[in-house]
Amino acid sequence: MQNDEFLDGLHHVGRQAKWVTSVCTGSLLLGAAGLLQGYRAASYWYARDYLESFGAIPDSARIVIDRNRATGGGMTAGVDFGLHLAGLWAGESAGKLVELCMEYAPAPPYGCGRPELADEATLNTAKNILGGKMPKDVVIETAKRRGM
Amino acid sequence: MQNDEFLDGLHHVGRQAKWVTSVCTGSLLLGAAGLLQGYRAASYWYARDYLESFGAIPDSARIVIDRNRATGGGMTAGVDFGLHLAGLWAGESAGKLVELCMEYAPAPPYGCGRPELADEATLNTAKNILGGKMPKDVVIETAKRRGM
Repeated sequence: MQNDEFLDGLHHVGRQAKWVTSVCTGSLLLGAAGLLQGYRAASYWYARDYLESFGAIPDSARIVIDRNRATGGGMTAGVDFGLHLAGLWAGESAGKLVELCMEYAPAPPYGCGRPELADEATLNTAKNILGGKMPKDVVIETAKRRGM
Repeated sequence: MQNDEFLDGLHHVGRQAKWVTSVCTGSLLLGAAGLLQGYRAASYWYARDYLESFGAIPDSARIVIDRNRATGGGMTAGVDFGLHLAGLWAGESAGKLVELCMEYAPAPPYGCGRPELADEATLNTAKNILGGKMPKDVVIETAKRRGM
């Protein structure tokens, strides 16, 4: 996000791409590259609101497709995202085949993998850790530097 | 599985280990190393029955713990497995924290990630592909070579 040469390149490629996609906090890079202005987009739950700094509309869904911008939620949400796009692009039978070959029939042991599902203690601990790793000031500084 | 030096090393280490664990087809390696005789074990769905060649008892659960042998199901089933062990070893609050930080609240798009959930066409295609990649004769030859 702090590398303008990279963001310029991403902008250049993204403007001509058939599809512009990301999983997890990758949508912040698309945003910083000016590719999400006026688009709904997903991101990792902790960083989702950061998208607003880049003119995107944060969406809490795990898979968000707005015109040719396809963005996925955080980390393991990318599994659902990838399977969805495999089905969209290669046909549902291909998506189903990949899902079976991946043995993807999840059963999360704690059922707390999103902030709205987690208890307060777990959520507060996570926020404390993630706040240090994903500081908002970097996003604000980047948006300002990129003229957004 | 065809490298006896590796299997001997695995046997040596595994016999003294506090825990012996695997995900996906890793349980076949534990089996070939003689570490699962008489133990219930999980594996990738296509290869699960192969465990019998090594004297293990195939179990269709995604997480199988028999004494100090902890084995997980195929590929993405390893996510559940890892979280379960994180909770077992570091406490439930640690397991919950990891699950939230991973944004692990899955929603499989097709709901066919296990053979019993898949339609016949998807299952047959998967079996055709996997049969070529995981031939049973390698397992039978290994079990024979290792004296099981």
